[in-house]
Amino acid sequence: MAGNSIGQLFKVTTFGESHGIALGCIVDGCPPGLPLTEADIQKDLDLRKPGTSKYTTQRREPDQVKILSGVFEGKTTGTPIGLLIENVDQRSKDYSNIMDRYRPGHADYTYAHKYGFRDYRGGGRSSARETAMRVAAGAIARKFLATRGVEIKGYLSQLGPIKVEQFDWEQVRQNPFFCPDASKVADMEQLIDDLRRDGNSIGARVSVMATGVQPGLGEPVFDRLDADLAHSLLSINAVKGVEIGDGFACVEQKGTEHRDEITPEGFTSNHGGGVLGGISSGQDLIAHIALKPTSSMTTPGRSVNVDGEPIEVVTKGRHDPCVGIRAVPIAEAMMAITVMDHFMRHRAQNADVVSSAPLIPPAVAD
Amino acid sequence: MAGNSIGQLFKVTTFGESHGIALGCIVDGCPPGLPLTEADIQKDLDLRKPGTSKYTTQRREPDQVKILSGVFEGKTTGTPIGLLIENVDQRSKDYSNIMDRYRPGHADYTYAHKYGFRDYRGGGRSSARETAMRVAAGAIARKFLATRGVEIKGYLSQLGPIKVEQFDWEQVRQNPFFCPDASKVADMEQLIDDLRRDGNSIGARVSVMATGVQPGLGEPVFDRLDADLAHSLLSINAVKGVEIGDGFACVEQKGTEHRDEITPEGFTSNHGGGVLGGISSGQDLIAHIALKPTSSMTTPGRSVNVDGEPIEVVTKGRHDPCVGIRAVPIAEAMMAITVMDHFMRHRAQNADVVSSAPLIPPAVAD
Amino acid sequence: MAGNSIGQLFKVTTFGESHGIALGCIVDGCPPGLPLTEADIQKDLDLRKPGTSKYTTQRREPDQVKILSGVFEGKTTGTPIGLLIENVDQRSKDYSNIMDRYRPGHADYTYAHKYGFRDYRGGGRSSARETAMRVAAGAIARKFLATRGVEIKGYLSQLGPIKVEQFDWEQVRQNPFFCPDASKVADMEQLIDDLRRDGNSIGARVSVMATGVQPGLGEPVFDRLDADLAHSLLSINAVKGVEIGDGFACVEQKGTEHRDEITPEGFTSNHGGGVLGGISSGQDLIAHIALKPTSSMTTPGRSVNVDGEPIEVVTKGRHDPCVGIRAVPIAEAMMAITVMDHFMRHRAQNADVVSSAPLIPPAVAD
Amino acid sequence: MAGNSIGQLFKVTTFGESHGIALGCIVDGCPPGLPLTEADIQKDLDLRKPGTSKYTTQRREPDQVKILSGVFEGKTTGTPIGLLIENVDQRSKDYSNIMDRYRPGHADYTYAHKYGFRDYRGGGRSSARETAMRVAAGAIARKFLATRGVEIKGYLSQLGPIKVEQFDWEQVRQNPFFCPDASKVADMEQLIDDLRRDGNSIGARVSVMATGVQPGLGEPVFDRLDADLAHSLLSINAVKGVEIGDGFACVEQKGTEHRDEITPEGFTSNHGGGVLGGISSGQDLIAHIALKPTSSMTTPGRSVNVDGEPIEVVTKGRHDPCVGIRAVPIAEAMMAITVMDHFMRHRAQNADVVSSAPLIPPAVAD
Repeated sequence: MAGNSIGQLFKVTTFGESHGIALGCIVDGCPPGLPLTEADIQKDLDLRKPGTSKYTTQRREPDQVKILSGVFEGKTTGTPIGLLIENVDQRSKDYSNIMDRYRPGHADYTYAHKYGFRDYRGGGRSSARETAMRVAAGAIARKFLATRGVEIKGYLSQLGPIKVEQFDWEQVRQNPFFCPDASKVADMEQLIDDLRRDGNSIGARVSVMATGVQPGLGEPVFDRLDADLAHSLLSINAVKGVEIGDGFACVEQKGTEHRDEITPEGFTSNHGGGVLGGISSGQDLIAHIALKPTSSMTTPGRSVNVDGEPIEVVTKGRHDPCVGIRAVPIAEAMMAITVMDHFMRHRAQNADVVSSAPLIPPAVAD
Repeated sequence: MAGNSIGQLFKVTTFGESHGIALGCIVDGCPPGLPLTEADIQKDLDLRKPGTSKYTTQRREPDQVKILSGVFEGKTTGTPIGLLIENVDQRSKDYSNIMDRYRPGHADYTYAHKYGFRDYRGGGRSSARETAMRVAAGAIARKFLATRGVEIKGYLSQLGPIKVEQFDWEQVRQNPFFCPDASKVADMEQLIDDLRRDGNSIGARVSVMATGVQPGLGEPVFDRLDADLAHSLLSINAVKGVEIGDGFACVEQKGTEHRDEITPEGFTSNHGGGVLGGISSGQDLIAHIALKPTSSMTTPGRSVNVDGEPIEVVTKGRHDPCVGIRAVPIAEAMMAITVMDHFMRHRAQNADVVSSAPLIPPAVAD
Repeated sequence: MAGNSIGQLFKVTTFGESHGIALGCIVDGCPPGLPLTEADIQKDLDLRKPGTSKYTTQRREPDQVKILSGVFEGKTTGTPIGLLIENVDQRSKDYSNIMDRYRPGHADYTYAHKYGFRDYRGGGRSSARETAMRVAAGAIARKFLATRGVEIKGYLSQLGPIKVEQFDWEQVRQNPFFCPDASKVADMEQLIDDLRRDGNSIGARVSVMATGVQPGLGEPVFDRLDADLAHSLLSINAVKGVEIGDGFACVEQKGTEHRDEITPEGFTSNHGGGVLGGISSGQDLIAHIALKPTSSMTTPGRSVNVDGEPIEVVTKGRHDPCVGIRAVPIAEAMMAITVMDHFMRHRAQNADVVSSAPLIPPAVAD
Repeated sequence: MAGNSIGQLFKVTTFGESHGIALGCIVDGCPPGLPLTEADIQKDLDLRKPGTSKYTTQRREPDQVKILSGVFEGKTTGTPIGLLIENVDQRSKDYSNIMDRYRPGHADYTYAHKYGFRDYRGGGRSSARETAMRVAAGAIARKFLATRGVEIKGYLSQLGPIKVEQFDWEQVRQNPFFCPDASKVADMEQLIDDLRRDGNSIGARVSVMATGVQPGLGEPVFDRLDADLAHSLLSINAVKGVEIGDGFACVEQKGTEHRDEITPEGFTSNHGGGVLGGISSGQDLIAHIALKPTSSMTTPGRSVNVDGEPIEVVTKGRHDPCVGIRAVPIAEAMMAITVMDHFMRHRAQNADVVSSAPLIPPAVAD
């Protein structure tokens, strides 16, 4: 069962290779009546698209999206929305040297075993280029969620050793790193310049949150909101870890520290990250992800070729020294898709529920 | 879309509340011809069952499993396997005091919003008692995977501040903590005794791995092996974080450190945790999870009642001071279910693939 | 991907063999707050259960259902509902003679090829005994649908050559054939008596309808209401054909005859069976099914044994001379499950839709 | 849960409206290594495409398909295959008159209720133009199945009152009706000419079969091969009935007539249509469908407008007097998709099964 769909009710199915003709996706299940234009989607795509600063890959892709179906007279019709982005700046010949060899840390070796052969041009389907369509589909989810008061926003919380210390949402969209701490931007620039010069790369931590989520979303026992979010975020290329709320810090916490107490004025804290028992609590939904340093770099690495002989590999092509940077809009998109899907799943079963439970405000500090 | 199934092809659907009549599950899709007895399943259930040491809950449940269907003359038939465990040691009256109040850090508040009302006895469906059926279903997956040379094993890698330092698999099943470091067991005993006395609880870190997994399992781009594993593991009660391989340590790694180089004699390391591009590499599949400290404790906590009035809650009943301890067999079971499911998904599409790619051994250090 | 679940949002998963310990199912996704008792389910089970008249199988099964979970204080909680029926009147030794041979017209041969071996006692999983759980799950769907004004009712429209000519709903529950035409009951009794004497069996036609279905249910282009209904009804043992509305009579109709014209006072006819473009129109939802004559009979038939040698088979055991008779409550249950599922699917996407389209009453003649 | 996907493992998801920019689909799960070109798909599309004879709609669509992904160096890669067909001959203004009115027998009224508004141009998503993508996806399934010796072929078995009497497969592709009886073609031409002159339309019966299907495909108890086939075929526009094998003729058959006896030389007959207990028997898989007369015709019909006022509707635009004619390649495609999906589902669970059951040849008369 091939896994190119995500979401059960707000279902996104994507196709496309890095150096193929086009990328595309179908969003099936979007509620009808939502005002939607290509510009709504393009806005998010432009945040992810390559070549916008010297800190990301230099491949120039306009990532111009076309809506092919599912929208009529400016509104979604409830039928499937077909989206298409043509690839325009392939340089497939950069990859002829990896045709018969497996780049270490890449999916070359595993694709070869799984499928018997692979489209090696630019990583084919395993390329992060595939994530463009996630952002496009996520933009539709975000547009809908906004009508319900839900806002989704992410930021780079750590670039290699550089941790964010001050926090200002206004800054996030004003530097090429999605960094909320203006005082760290110069360090980040320097780090990336150094890495590029050294033919190396670096990991990153990205944080993403949703505000305004109603209590009740999530489907225990398996499809908990946080479990589905973990699936969704870990499906992004290069992600190696997910935390909900305090995440791994919980390991050393005591119960009296961790539990978010409840008062009529609001929760006293949000260690849980907005989820209790797999269901949203109405607090901010908070997740963090760890992204590995990309293995696409010019420092030679040991590997084998298709005949099992030892070789050295140098990854040419145009690459991001830190894939975590452009991961911010992707993580936002994935959270949007998951929250949207759970909004729909919840109401499918529970549309008639009129709960008399009191509505507790989120923690003041959120 | 209620979420009480996991797995697409090896599909496990569970039911049952903490203080209901019984817990049950249906395993649909198990290959036919697998020798299977109740003892095979009971063996794993006994590892998870409550009341076996003073470090876990004192509820006494024999957790005696019955196979109701799908097995004939000692072998699975390929038809759905029905499993049942009767509850025998409910003490529902312990819970009458939480009928009209929401325990902080629990799912009481969120269930009330989602469903309008809740079975409050012992946490109802949100109780960790539900995980018994995960272990039962996982035992079947493990039995099958063993025929393919796959072994799954976990351990407690950290209990609150106490980190495992020495490693001996033999130790894991010989202390009530699933701890591979015999030198830490006394500290762990002391810590749990102290917590119980203080009416408090603590978090934990559990590690789980699968050896012998063939290269090729995993369904990019969304249903990567690691993404599905993250879903599976984060669906366990109290889990707040998942790492694949080096996980959050990747954030500060450089590409040259992280990428697992390949030699004809084997991979040189396993930072990736056995997954590349969402597909198993043949190295050990490694995951770590963070479990929060349970919110079931006798230290009073602030909350509200169903009328929104401020109250104090003390959680009576019988509880684990650290749910992470008994999470080891549960995490093993969830990994088994996910690997089994991907084994089947892979062969559905790729049974005909004869890959000529060389088979690289896992890292020596694994 | 084993297929023992039906429904996407109101999801029913069953297990159990004819001569196993028990039959069971899990209903996942039932909306919370629905009053539900075992008696609600038993009522429908009693209509299907064997041994109630001399015109059906003489196996005596009380089919006593137990609710194991998902109901608290008399109402569904929204968590999975576990149901169980113990088998009490197996006579497995009746079947020892078919252990090594394939009954013609039965699933023996195909199960042997699919799974390699089979539980031959009473047909194992392929027995119509499995349908008990469909009726149980359907009873829950019917109870919910009744709260929305939807009623589902079926009848035997033809038994072999005997066609129903007069129609009186009151009669349906007053004879063992679910026949709406009292004047045909004596003929039916005679026919069944003759067949039993001759060691033969006969086919039947069953009709089923839902009244009160709101316009809008159905999910084009593939999961049309009628396509899902066809799947649902054809999944019943022995069903070989499904018609929606006029069905095969459409082949000879002209467009001017078939199209159901619309007037402000109502549709002028209901040739379409309540579905247009795969979506319910608000007219009565009407389906008909053809059931083959059971192959369980005492007239010897040619076949082969497991070694491929020619043999004669006589099916002993206790059987229905016409499986169509007891199919009436089963068909009702399957229609209920499908309509319920589509009710939930529709509102997941379209709960916000406020259509200004006029509501046209169903045809008077419906 | 919107329903624009079909198949579980060989999963086809489509988008596109009659008068939109393009039609498209994603085929996810196709096994890798299958040689595939656009010409392979075009060949089937050309059989369905409009405007090829005077007996179908005069809309001129080249239906030129583009493969956008999933194929590399002439072979499928195992990643999703994106397909696109641009619409070129829309005449949307033909439909401005139905913007505010509901055509009887069409989906206008039901779409308006379901989604609140609709793309009325050419029927939007409810148009049979959507079926082009079914044929495209089906062509891929057929290409794969052919490598396993499975061939799928259909024909028009009845056009209104004109029944096929002689049978010659060679004829089917040699007349515009897909009619296997050359002696009936002139009558069919006359009938269609008369209907077009009279502004009327007619129903049809289409038959489709698969030869060479191995025994074992089908997933009881719900996802039987025949039940899934019924879903698949009834999801085609205008289909109102499905029969497997003898279908509704079973109603009047006795068990001794219907059961297909088994001899070492072969089954003696194929009343069951190649399915026993929901699983393929190795005999020819046979299905028949009934298609209603299209409601698109120039004879005025009574209806209401969006304000509920009585009106008359004349359907302009370019239409097929009998949609059954072009349904032949569509039915073939749907059967191919379903058989392909079940081939993959079967081997996911049962790839290891080595059945010792004898292989019985299909009936001679098949």
